Amino acid sequence: MTISVGLLEIGELGEDQKRSLLKTIIMTCSAFFFMGLLGFNLAFAPTIMNGFIGNPTHTGPFLGGFSSDAFGALNRVWWSMGPGYFNKGITLPVYFFFEVAFASVTLALVGVVVLRKMKMSAFFIFSIVYFLLIWSIPAAWIWNPTGWLYAAGVRDFAGGLVVHGAAGAAGLGIVLQIWREEKKRGLKESPQTRLNPSSGWLTLSILLLWLGWFGFNPGSTLAWGISAQIVAVSTFLSASAAFLSTMFFRYLMVKENPGLVYAVNGILMGLIIITPLAGFVSPASAVILGLIGGPLFLAGEKLFLRFKWFSDPVGLFPGHMLGGVFGFAMVAFFSQQPFAAAVGSSNLPDGILFGGGFSAIQQLGWQLFAVIAVMVTVFAISFITTWLISLGLHGITREYKKEE
Amino acid sequence: MTISVGLLEIGELGEDQKRSLLKTIIMTCSAFFFMGLLGFNLAFAPTIMNGFIGNPTHTGPFLGGFSSDAFGALNRVWWSMGPGYFNKGITLPVYFFFEVAFASVTLALVGVVVLRKMKMSAFFIFSIVYFLLIWSIPAAWIWNPTGWLYAAGVRDFAGGLVVHGAAGAAGLGIVLQIWREEKKRGLKESPQTRLNPSSGWLTLSILLLWLGWFGFNPGSTLAWGISAQIVAVSTFLSASAAFLSTMFFRYLMVKENPGLVYAVNGILMGLIIITPLAGFVSPASAVILGLIGGPLFLAGEKLFLRFKWFSDPVGLFPGHMLGGVFGFAMVAFFSQQPFAAAVGSSNLPDGILFGGGFSAIQQLGWQLFAVIAVMVTVFAISFITTWLISLGLHGITREYKKEE
Amino acid sequence: MTISVGLLEIGELGEDQKRSLLKTIIMTCSAFFFMGLLGFNLAFAPTIMNGFIGNPTHTGPFLGGFSSDAFGALNRVWWSMGPGYFNKGITLPVYFFFEVAFASVTLALVGVVVLRKMKMSAFFIFSIVYFLLIWSIPAAWIWNPTGWLYAAGVRDFAGGLVVHGAAGAAGLGIVLQIWREEKKRGLKESPQTRLNPSSGWLTLSILLLWLGWFGFNPGSTLAWGISAQIVAVSTFLSASAAFLSTMFFRYLMVKENPGLVYAVNGILMGLIIITPLAGFVSPASAVILGLIGGPLFLAGEKLFLRFKWFSDPVGLFPGHMLGGVFGFAMVAFFSQQPFAAAVGSSNLPDGILFGGGFSAIQQLGWQLFAVIAVMVTVFAISFITTWLISLGLHGITREYKKEE
Repeated sequence: MTISVGLLEIGELGEDQKRSLLKTIIMTCSAFFFMGLLGFNLAFAPTIMNGFIGNPTHTGPFLGGFSSDAFGALNRVWWSMGPGYFNKGITLPVYFFFEVAFASVTLALVGVVVLRKMKMSAFFIFSIVYFLLIWSIPAAWIWNPTGWLYAAGVRDFAGGLVVHGAAGAAGLGIVLQIWREEKKRGLKESPQTRLNPSSGWLTLSILLLWLGWFGFNPGSTLAWGISAQIVAVSTFLSASAAFLSTMFFRYLMVKENPGLVYAVNGILMGLIIITPLAGFVSPASAVILGLIGGPLFLAGEKLFLRFKWFSDPVGLFPGHMLGGVFGFAMVAFFSQQPFAAAVGSSNLPDGILFGGGFSAIQQLGWQLFAVIAVMVTVFAISFITTWLISLGLHGITREYKKEE
Repeated sequence: MTISVGLLEIGELGEDQKRSLLKTIIMTCSAFFFMGLLGFNLAFAPTIMNGFIGNPTHTGPFLGGFSSDAFGALNRVWWSMGPGYFNKGITLPVYFFFEVAFASVTLALVGVVVLRKMKMSAFFIFSIVYFLLIWSIPAAWIWNPTGWLYAAGVRDFAGGLVVHGAAGAAGLGIVLQIWREEKKRGLKESPQTRLNPSSGWLTLSILLLWLGWFGFNPGSTLAWGISAQIVAVSTFLSASAAFLSTMFFRYLMVKENPGLVYAVNGILMGLIIITPLAGFVSPASAVILGLIGGPLFLAGEKLFLRFKWFSDPVGLFPGHMLGGVFGFAMVAFFSQQPFAAAVGSSNLPDGILFGGGFSAIQQLGWQLFAVIAVMVTVFAISFITTWLISLGLHGITREYKKEE
Repeated sequence: MTISVGLLEIGELGEDQKRSLLKTIIMTCSAFFFMGLLGFNLAFAPTIMNGFIGNPTHTGPFLGGFSSDAFGALNRVWWSMGPGYFNKGITLPVYFFFEVAFASVTLALVGVVVLRKMKMSAFFIFSIVYFLLIWSIPAAWIWNPTGWLYAAGVRDFAGGLVVHGAAGAAGLGIVLQIWREEKKRGLKESPQTRLNPSSGWLTLSILLLWLGWFGFNPGSTLAWGISAQIVAVSTFLSASAAFLSTMFFRYLMVKENPGLVYAVNGILMGLIIITPLAGFVSPASAVILGLIGGPLFLAGEKLFLRFKWFSDPVGLFPGHMLGGVFGFAMVAFFSQQPFAAAVGSSNLPDGILFGGGFSAIQQLGWQLFAVIAVMVTVFAISFITTWLISLGLHGITREYKKEE
């Protein structure tokens, strides 16, 4: 998935963006290394500090250090996958892989706003903080069954807020620091990066993203069975519906073939919106949600294009942030008990549109509260981190034209 | 697979063919949406009208609509996968995915003859009719166990006729309409599209096609087991043998290295030919069939190059149509009872080459009859559809040079 | 994997290298065909001649010929996967696929030194000998449980010596013959091929290689279970650590961003080094081994760049040969009994660093002896083969500029 996002970036911005791919490789390796070292425990070990963060010493570094006993420890079912919690029987290494993939792709989403502007060294240091802290906090709060927001009933199936929303908030923290440095250099607006689509890479990236979502969404049922199959159907139907609606409404706007970039963004929007509730809704609801995705993306694009203090050609804000948060809120509208129960969220009430009444409205309140708590926290840590890195490296932005 | 065909097209025709990839995305999304809406029922629900077409109301739209019961319905084994029919225990969502992938890739094959000539809007409308009707009819006849040709004993393991042959017939319907419009514009022959190979994309497409076939052929045993493994071996041996024979005979023709495009076409021919009988034959027969593939493709290519009223640079007719129909007929020659029985076709007699005698000749008769029935029907519906779209849109061909 | 290596080659050398990809396809098809015909038996059938080579007539050609009984034979567990040997219950077709993939990728590694210099026909003939003999001999010695080196206690988890080391030795045989012909033409040094990186393909190749290693290393446990999961974790941690150390030490050398090619080579080095012992060590040892990989590769690169009689821009010698042999020797240092026993190597003693004492030193002796035996044999056969082909074809090198 991380590499798919890298290919998406060169697919949209042009093949000369070698930095996109180096950045991709850095993120992938950094994710394995630092999640292995510490981050995985911070996110998924039993929480300390009232559900705020996982116990960093739960496993040793790198899942078990040099111990020969490691084999025994690795063999055991991960605590939260055992009876009493999710009860899925998943072992530590498998769960580690799954969550590293999530963490890595989340930073990849953040990274699309970095463009050529940020020093690679600054981004690498950011990635370390990211995998230790910035990603781990929302995961510990919402996906860890001892996290405080999970305990309050908040549900995010495969990462509408934990992945896409939080990526947007972290990205905002970075672009704000970039803008502060650009302003200091006397710029009136942030240099905009133009689209320069390369159709082969763009299409390949969509293939890989689609495949990756096939891993993340059905995988989030934490077992292969009928629930995972239904999630797969819902995910793909939402993507197809969002593609059709994006193309249709864009065609109405410009009266000509909207072209490949809108096609790709339409599919992505459908995938993003369905992510936080793919396991809770019926296939036909997935179609409805996908159809809403088209106009939502087009409106979001129009809105964010007004801001001139950052450049977001790949669509982190109108796509991932807006779509992820929207879908996350829709949990309270479209959920249906039998679907939610089958993926282990039996406490989730029916949605407002399916007769959930007061419980559903309460759910909506908690979901919106979680949006604010996560977005503010992630934005703040991301901005402070970038600011500190900027102090240490005398700025995080590169001087243009010097290289490449 | 659908995307592999898109990459094959840009691999052979050059990267400037952005339309190839937009077309690919349209087909993928349209397949999910319209097969989900109705097409899947028309092809695979219990047939009505004496085995002519599936019952369109068997499941609701999108596999189960908004119903919470959907979960129960989706959980059930699909009727034709239960005892009394194929008895494989496959659920609705899994079977839906598998068949949507087949439908989508079939249209992708059709689509390689569309080139830059056809309006994207016309092709999109065609795709809707395609997934509702054109693809569903041969599937309902031959793959649905209540279809009239299946009942007569016709067998097509993984789509020699249902996929490759029918794609050729549908493609003929489109190129005929394109040619009628070109003639009306005063052209003496249809503009030929030149090959402009891009080796990276070509090779990548072959990798993906090979992987995809690994899904379709072994997957057509509808269970992972020793049969699927043998099918995988036969499929890959046939491809390798066809590659070697294509390169060898082409080398004899031109006395120089035949190059990458022939290499790719050779592999494809081996994959296509073995498709309709991969589950019915021994590995050594697969090698023989692959070796025949080389000269067959080269002869087909020579034959179809004579026609100047269409352009088929990617080889729909000499490759998919010729190879698919040839392999489909070979069912009556190469089948061996123990292999066929193991994949659930216990009624299929030994082939003519393996002592099948009169039963095998009878089988050959039915297979050839099926070729005629399917090819004529699909060609006719495809042509009529294209002709009606042409009326509605004032022509399906684009004026050249206007865009891109 | 084979195709990944092809893409790696065009990723590093530039897209104009069409020959890279034709070569790739030749190798893939040749592997299936000739391993199927004979090579698989020579490597993996019960050995004859005191453990020197497998019995060529153990199965018929192509796993079972035309026999209808083939189904029965194919259905049986492969002899070495039954009780008394590895006891994994794997059938012939699955094991055949796995080992053809290994054979094919090994030749792909050899092939990166061929560049534009070698006639394609010569390389094709070489590939036949390769799959019949050159690859089969080390496999029969070390991976076949009746091979003489296996019997002596030598262990190579997923091919440090059998794959990467032997590929280096075979490559040396080829470049020596190429150099002899170049010298005869009066050249003072072998023309060096320059790097011309294409970031998209390079990154894609790394994705595919990484995925492929996910197949080979965990797959070498011959079963999906906790051992395979630990192997996967160790493999990825080693790759990440080697990436970080390569970038770090290269940065110290040049004081600037080392760029994409070093990133890719760092990851590869980590994957290569862990290959021969991924199943025998703890995750933290994998991190240590990966961290050593960076400086080892950089030193190897410096060393091999001194030789001017061959050109190795993709790094067969400093990467695969050096890294594979190094990791293979490290078996005697880092192994831990509980891990080794879990993947079926219960005779392997604890490593020198984990208190293995005299047994571990004895193991080191055998591992080093195996290095010499395999490297000399493979080099000799490869050189003699290339020399004979050269006699038959009046040279194996191409005249430059004539084509392409």
